[in-house]
This record gives sequence, C-alpha cells and structure tokens, in this order.
Amino acid sequence: MTTGTRHALRLLISGPDRPGIISGVTGYLYRLGADVTSSDQYTSAPGPGTFFQRLAFTLPAAARGTLVSTFGREVAEPFGLTWRLVDAAQPKRVAILASKADHCLVDLLWRMRRDELPMRVELVAANHPDLRATVEQHGIPFHHVPSVPGKPEESESRLADLLGDRCDLIVLARYMQVLTGEFLTKVAVPLINIHHSVLPAFAGAQPYTRAYERGVKLIGATAHYVTEELDCGPIIEQDVARASHRDDAAALARLGADVERTVLARAVRWHCEDRLLRHGNRVLVLS
Amino acid sequence: MTTGTRHALRLLISGPDRPGIISGVTGYLYRLGADVTSSDQYTSAPGPGTFFQRLAFTLPAAARGTLVSTFGREVAEPFGLTWRLVDAAQPKRVAILASKADHCLVDLLWRMRRDELPMRVELVAANHPDLRATVEQHGIPFHHVPSVPGKPEESESRLADLLGDRCDLIVLARYMQVLTGEFLTKVAVPLINIHHSVLPAFAGAQPYTRAYERGVKLIGATAHYVTEELDCGPIIEQDVARASHRDDAAALARLGADVERTVLARAVRWHCEDRLLRHGNRVLVLS
Amino acid sequence: MTTGTRHALRLLISGPDRPGIISGVTGYLYRLGADVTSSDQYTSAPGPGTFFQRLAFTLPAAARGTLVSTFGREVAEPFGLTWRLVDAAQPKRVAILASKADHCLVDLLWRMRRDELPMRVELVAANHPDLRATVEQHGIPFHHVPSVPGKPEESESRLADLLGDRCDLIVLARYMQVLTGEFLTKVAVPLINIHHSVLPAFAGAQPYTRAYERGVKLIGATAHYVTEELDCGPIIEQDVARASHRDDAAALARLGADVERTVLARAVRWHCEDRLLRHGNRVLVLS
Amino acid sequence: MTTGTRHALRLLISGPDRPGIISGVTGYLYRLGADVTSSDQYTSAPGPGTFFQRLAFTLPAAARGTLVSTFGREVAEPFGLTWRLVDAAQPKRVAILASKADHCLVDLLWRMRRDELPMRVELVAANHPDLRATVEQHGIPFHHVPSVPGKPEESESRLADLLGDRCDLIVLARYMQVLTGEFLTKVAVPLINIHHSVLPAFAGAQPYTRAYERGVKLIGATAHYVTEELDCGPIIEQDVARASHRDDAAALARLGADVERTVLARAVRWHCEDRLLRHGNRVLVLS
Repeated sequence: MTTGTRHALRLLISGPDRPGIISGVTGYLYRLGADVTSSDQYTSAPGPGTFFQRLAFTLPAAARGTLVSTFGREVAEPFGLTWRLVDAAQPKRVAILASKADHCLVDLLWRMRRDELPMRVELVAANHPDLRATVEQHGIPFHHVPSVPGKPEESESRLADLLGDRCDLIVLARYMQVLTGEFLTKVAVPLINIHHSVLPAFAGAQPYTRAYERGVKLIGATAHYVTEELDCGPIIEQDVARASHRDDAAALARLGADVERTVLARAVRWHCEDRLLRHGNRVLVLS
Repeated sequence: MTTGTRHALRLLISGPDRPGIISGVTGYLYRLGADVTSSDQYTSAPGPGTFFQRLAFTLPAAARGTLVSTFGREVAEPFGLTWRLVDAAQPKRVAILASKADHCLVDLLWRMRRDELPMRVELVAANHPDLRATVEQHGIPFHHVPSVPGKPEESESRLADLLGDRCDLIVLARYMQVLTGEFLTKVAVPLINIHHSVLPAFAGAQPYTRAYERGVKLIGATAHYVTEELDCGPIIEQDVARASHRDDAAALARLGADVERTVLARAVRWHCEDRLLRHGNRVLVLS
Repeated sequence: MTTGTRHALRLLISGPDRPGIISGVTGYLYRLGADVTSSDQYTSAPGPGTFFQRLAFTLPAAARGTLVSTFGREVAEPFGLTWRLVDAAQPKRVAILASKADHCLVDLLWRMRRDELPMRVELVAANHPDLRATVEQHGIPFHHVPSVPGKPEESESRLADLLGDRCDLIVLARYMQVLTGEFLTKVAVPLINIHHSVLPAFAGAQPYTRAYERGVKLIGATAHYVTEELDCGPIIEQDVARASHRDDAAALARLGADVERTVLARAVRWHCEDRLLRHGNRVLVLS
Repeated sequence: MTTGTRHALRLLISGPDRPGIISGVTGYLYRLGADVTSSDQYTSAPGPGTFFQRLAFTLPAAARGTLVSTFGREVAEPFGLTWRLVDAAQPKRVAILASKADHCLVDLLWRMRRDELPMRVELVAANHPDLRATVEQHGIPFHHVPSVPGKPEESESRLADLLGDRCDLIVLARYMQVLTGEFLTKVAVPLINIHHSVLPAFAGAQPYTRAYERGVKLIGATAHYVTEELDCGPIIEQDVARASHRDDAAALARLGADVERTVLARAVRWHCEDRLLRHGNRVLVLS
C-alpha cells in the first residue's frame, strides 16, 4: 500500500455532553489514519449541556468510505451524537439575492475572485435590474425577478424555480424583501441575511433614519440566519462603526455600508468553512 | 489699567440658523477683550435648521459683568438665541445614585481624584448599604435610602430632601430603579444614566441574559439623559466590546461592566465640560 | 439686484494665534453676504500657538471676485495669515499609482462611482500590467510603467510626463515603490500613501511577516502624506483589526487589506474635502 | 466506591506535531475518569509544526496521583511532549511592582476583589511611596524600594529578597524601571509588563509625547512578557483607543491609561488561567 492521496475533511458533531466523546471521536479518527489539523469544541453548560465539536483533518482517500459507513454505528450512535462530514475542497454553491444597493454584492464577488471565500456563486437574482452589468462582468448569471407588491408568492415561486437544488446557501445581500415561511421550507438551505443595525436594535425598516433621530453614537450591522420571524434569526456576527451628531441619515447609511459588507463577508466565510453551529437561537463560531 | 486677571468662560448658544450669528457673537466677544480658545458649531440642517455653538474663551475679569448684562440685549435677542454662560473653573456639583454594583461608582470617584472629571461629588445615595465604605473612603457622605417596593414616592421623597438644591447633575451609576416623572420634575437638574446595552437593543431588565440567549457578538453600553420614558432618553455616548459564544451571561456582564464604566465616565466628563447640547431626542457633543 | 446663484466655497486659514482672528474673518465674510455652513478651528497651544481654521460657506456668485481680491489685504495680511480658497463643487483631479494588489484601487474606484469621494480619477499608472482591465472597466486610462531596478529615475520620468499638471493629488494605492525627492519636487502636488501597519511600527518592507513573528494581536494600517523620508510622513488616519495567534502572515495580510482600503478611502475623502491641514509632522482633521 | 470529590485541573502540552497526540492524551484522560470541560489546540504549521494544547477537566481526587506518576511515561514521553499540570482552584501568587501611576494597580486590585482575576497579591513594591495607602487599604503589604540611579543591583537585590519564592508571577504595573537579566534569572518566574504604546511602535521612553509629535490617530497599549531586551518580549495582548489632533500629550496619556489598565488586566487574567503558551517570540492565547 502506498501513502496515496489524502482528503481534507471536516466533521461537525453535536449531542448531549458526556465524558469520553472527545476521546471516542479522536481515537476512532486516529485508527483510520486521520491527521487532525484543527479541533475546536464547546459545551453549552457543564453537566446536562450540549457538546459541539468541529474537527478538520486529512484522511487517506481509501479510508473515507470506511468513515462514512462506520462512524455512525461505532461512535455517533453510542454517544447519541448528530454528525455531518464535509469535503473541505468542495466550495459551497451559493445564490445571492440582491436589490439595488451594490456594496455587499460587489464585496462578496470581489472576495470570491481573491479566493477569500470558499464558494462558487451559481447565480444572482435581484428584484431590480440595476446590478446586471456588475454581476455579468464576473461571468455569473443574473436574473431580474421583480417583486409584486402584496404577492410575494409570485416572485418567490420564480426564485424557487431558479434555485432548484443548485445551491447550498442563499445570501441576502441587502435583498430588502421579506421571505415567507413557505419559501424557506421550499428552498431548504440556510439563508444568511445582513441587517443594517446591531440587532435587536432598530429591527424593521429604515434603521438609519431611526438611528439618526435617536442620536446614536455607533452604527452597526448584524449578519444572521434567516428564520420565519423577521430580524429574529440567530446572530452570526456583528460590528459597529463610530458615528457623531454631524452624520445625517445618509452619512450613517454610508458608514453602515462599510460595516455591512465586512460583517456579511465574515459570516459567509465562516459558513462556507463550516464553522457555524446553531444552538437554540444562538450561533457558535468554532475555530 | 493693568492686564489683571482673566476668567475662563464657556458660552452655549442655540437658535434658528441665520447668516451672521457667528460673526455677531465673535465680534461682540472680541470687543469685550475675549480670547477664544475653542469654538465648535453645528447646524441641524441648512436653511431652516437650528444653530448650536459652544465657545470657550478667557475674558478680563472686569468685562464679565458687562457680558452678563449686555449679551442678551445686544446679540442673543436680535438673533433669537437661547444662551447660557458658564464659569469653566467651577466644578459641577454631582450626586451619584447607586445600588450594589461598584464598577461605575469606583471609576467615577477614581477619575475625580485624578482630576479627569471637573466635578465635586456632594453625596452618594444607594438603595443598598454595600458601598458605604467605598464611598466614605473618599471622604464623601453616603446615604442608604432603601427602595420600598411599590412605593417609589417614599424613597424618592427622601432622595429629594437629601439632594435639595445641592447638585447640578445626578448620575445614576447602575441605580437600577425607575424614577418617576414627579421626581425628575422636582429635582430639576439633568440626570445621566448608564444602560447596560447598546440602546435601543435590550431596553428593560436583564439585558445580559437576553443578549446571551440571542447569541450577540457585541456587548455594549449606552449613557443617556434620563427622561420619564424608561430607556428612551437622548443618547450621549455608546461603546461595545467583542463577545463570543463562549461567554455566558456572567461573562457578558463582566465584559459589559468595563464598557459601562468607560462610557459613563466619558458622558459625565462631557457634561461637566458643557459639551452636551440637546436637540430633540439627540445629544450633540461639541468640541 | 436679484438673489442670484451662490457658490459653495471653503476657506483654509492658518497663522500665529491672536485674539480677533475668528471675529475678523467671520465679520468679513458676513459683510460679503456669506452664509457659513460649517466652521472648525484648532489652536496648537494657547498663547504662542498656531491658529488653524476651515470654513465652509456659500457666497453670492458676484461676491467671489471681491473675496479673492480683498481678503488678503483686509484680513489675512493684518493678522499674518496664510489662506487658501477652494471651490467646493470642483472635484479633485487624482492620479492613482498601483502595483499588483487591487484592494485599495478597487475600493477607491467603487467609492468614486457611488459619489462617496469628491474626486475625478484622471489616470491610473502601475508598475505591473495586472490591473489594466479593472481600471479600464471604469473608463479610466491605465498606463503600465514598469519599474527599472536601480533606476527609479526612468520610471519616475515617465510618470512625471504622464502626470504633467493633470492632477491635484497622487494616491499611492499600494504602489510599493520608493519615490525620490526629485520626483516629489517635480510633481509638486500632495501624495497620500497607505502603509500596511500602524506606523511607526513595522516601517519598511514585509510588515505582515514581521508582525506574525512578533505575535501581534492587532493588525493596522496608516494613511500618511509622502515625504522624502520613507514611512515618516505626517499621519492622516490609522485603524486596526483584531488578530490572533491562529492568523498566519497570509491571514494577517488579508485582515490588513480590509483595514488598508478603509483607512486610505477615509484619508482620500478628507483630503478631497479640504479637511486636512499640516502642522509640523502632524495632520489636523478639521470638521 | 463512591463518586467522591473531583479536582479541577489543567493540562498544558506542547511538542512536535504528529498524528495521534489528541487521541492519545484524551484517551488516557478518559481512562482515568476525567471529564474534559474545555480543550483548545494549536499547531504552528502543518507537518513539521509544533503542537500546543490546553485541556481543562475534572478528575476523581483519587486519580490525580496516578496522572502525576504515569502521564509522563505513558503519554508525554512516547509523543515527545513537554507538559505541565495545574490545579485550577489554586490562585496564582502575584507580586506587583509599581511606581507613581495608580491606574493599572488600582484596576488589578479592584478586579481581584471582584473575583475577576484568579490571583492572590502577596505584595506590592514600588520605587516611590505614593501608593502605600491605596495598597494597604486592600490589606496587602506595601514595600517602598527606591531606585538608586545607576545602581539597579541595589534595588533589585532588595526586591529579590522580598520576593523570595513567594510568587508565581510578577506584574509590572507601570514600574518604569528597566530590570537586568540577572534579576530576571534570579526571580525565575514570568513577568508581565504593560507598555504604553502598540509595540513595536514607540518602544522606549515618553511614547505619548512622541505619539503626539507624530500626529497619531490611535493610542494603544501592549502587554508582554518581559525579556532581557527592553520592550521586545513576546506580545500577549494589545488594544487601542481613538485619538485626534485635539489631544495633546497629556490627553493621549489619559486615553492611554484606560487602554493600559484594560489590556494589562486581560493579560494577567489569561496568565492566571493558564491560557498563555509561548512559541518563539509569540504568545498563544488558548481558550
């Protein structure tokens, strides 16, 4: 047997905490010839808590099938664990929904081109046509799917047809439309949204105008997973920029755009690197 | 005539914006022999906006009376301005209300001792006795005024008696009690509160627990002027610290305490330096 | 006489501090019919200090000539002031020098397109051809001017020919070449450079590698005016991002790129808004 | 056999990276009845890198002796690992060296009293007498050990006598004196220093004055382990505060003091929680 090629894999695990999980998992991987390159864990509380672990490792190509067929029976089931195995070399297939504002979209496409984001953008759909040239410049298909006021099911139906099962993640890059629970169920992949405030502050519309009227001294942004309840999904990442009374609503929006694109890019990167695990309404960011 | 002594003064002005205000004000001051050391202005919007200005200057001692008796008639009235003259050498007289937590109180007293805050703390009152030694160590009177559940008027009445007209500012250093509109009217001086979140997020009680459950990635604090409507007063200053999923509610509270004391100290300093001007529900911080 | 059109102007003033300057300047402007929309001043120290002021105002079109011809004699000379009058509507003409890295360049061009930067990019010159398509996409001329090792005068001569007197500002968007004093003298316009560290730390080459080896916990960037002495020009703006021991030199460079583009854009905007005044080796940022 | 008491322990490991370490260590701990509550690892580079791990766990009291006597032979030696076992319940014994400035000292003592820092301060020594009352208020012995200009060995000899083997860590809370290599060797415990700039910028004396003259826009602080070469020890933590041209050297020092105390407290806490591992001139902060 030659050393042969090795696969770069990631294993995501969660379940009720109990002694021996780490030892059980890493012992199993070691016997299969794995070389663990990074491992991070989190336990939600001592005792009756929930255990979460992310392991990155390389494995002889030949051992991959063994892992897939035996890890569940030999490790996950005895410990009562939920698990997921991911191929690190496989970029996530991403669909981006946008509207008119280009800052988040441009930033994601630019970072993808720089190889900062392990993703492949399959398509961009927007309810306005303005961003077509920007998108097609990158050789990515652009679809204009207008929103029909009061009839979200029409545009959502078109979107769902476009998306089919072509993507692993949907990124709302300032899409500005509320998505129905039916749509979320139908697409059945995670959605990441960027909200233009430090949620839960200024949930809803026009946060910059409301922030101005409230005299805020910080302008923020929040990336979160989308749930049926608007602006209430679990928070992935947040950041702020300093503002002053001299900044009117337009200036706050400009400051905010810088924060939004940075925060969204970080959230998308972490998702594409399989670092994000959900725990109730919280998101763990494992390293 | 000798050069004589000079007074350090501050002039705070606001009114409907119109051409000539700056020229009128600074021309008047120049004729009185003022030497302007700092001047900052803000106009809320062009045209029909409101003009705000803070001027710091020195003035021959003999000219002070002239300013007091003639500035209104010669400058403020023709321009329709509201104005206030402040003696820069006169520290603000401050009362601090606290509860059990010491971090904001200790920090304010320590900064006062270092001459970072141009204030003199006249008294500290708390609804718990725990901080007595800490306060008396600084040679400051401490009053234990217990809260009577359901009867805020009892403790407020005692507080009002203690405060009399002995203070220019009341600082709520984690006082944790809601004050009635009657009390605010009675004391008739500004109150600054520190709220343990980036308002308007997590207004109300237990923000750290709620922040934990929401999986926030930033922990913040907001210093604001107190109005009758809880947690809705105009925001003076805000700041944040980075948190992670590893921080439980207690750790978030610990991170938050650092931000709270810093933000409150900044707000108190700016107030004591007469840098804060209110504009609707906003606070301007003039330099 | 009709109300007529008004010009938006900026007046930049500096000189030895003395009483009456503000009153003299604003009184003069008021008599000419100016409406001051913003004014900021700074005095380097009381007494023998230097006074700096930036005034933004509108002026009847007809009064502009009067200001140009009389301000010097009536105000600036009596007070010993240096002054500069700028037309706010006139965007700065900018030349960008780049190399291979695109993050600063892309960000500047994108912000210009969004009207965040009051500038017009006349040309981009780079010592590598890689960025041609990116630049020409924006309809901006791109010039490949290779560096000749050991013979800076060759490329500098070509650059100087290209620049002629076509620009008011040169931005080094990660140009990575040292410019000679002769070149600086010849082009005779300000140059802004972005350095990839919090100067004066890690001045010189390969700051990210050196930062990694030093185990830094913050990655920064500094925008500064270029002087003959490398990396020692007056600092305009700085910022940092948090790093950890998990970030290798490449990750630090990626984090740094985000800070670099933000810091450079801020510095360029302030320069184009005539907010930057030099005082010795310091830069004042007036509002 | 009853469940009995359990000890909270920490195991710090480092050595050449190779497959199987994690599995070997956690398998061993599991067989001894350990319940791992937190585990973090870092590998300096793939392949020929160095592996570092911090494990926190509880262990039956009875198994502790077994671990101490067998871990080396059964795990550490086969893998070529350096290891250290620490009792989590045992606070670190700390000596603080100070001078005149109180901000770092006061903050450390206040945090210790709040149980934020798992340490016990055995003594404070200062080369000036000013801080005696502050220290003795906390019931901690204060020693005035004046510096003798040009004769560091005199004060260092007195300090070494005072310290004896009574501390596990020495914290320089703005001690402002250079310590000789002889002293470092003699005390033979780690020393943490707080430097008042973002090292390596402004290494040496008077950083605030030099920062002012350089027109910096950020003021920082660096906590680092002390080595014989002044200001060149491995960096533990850094942070910054924003400054402006309005801040003179005194204002920068005031801003800096806030950053210094925060950064030093974080570094001391991490050290006392055994989170810091050295790798060359870098410090890893394990969670």
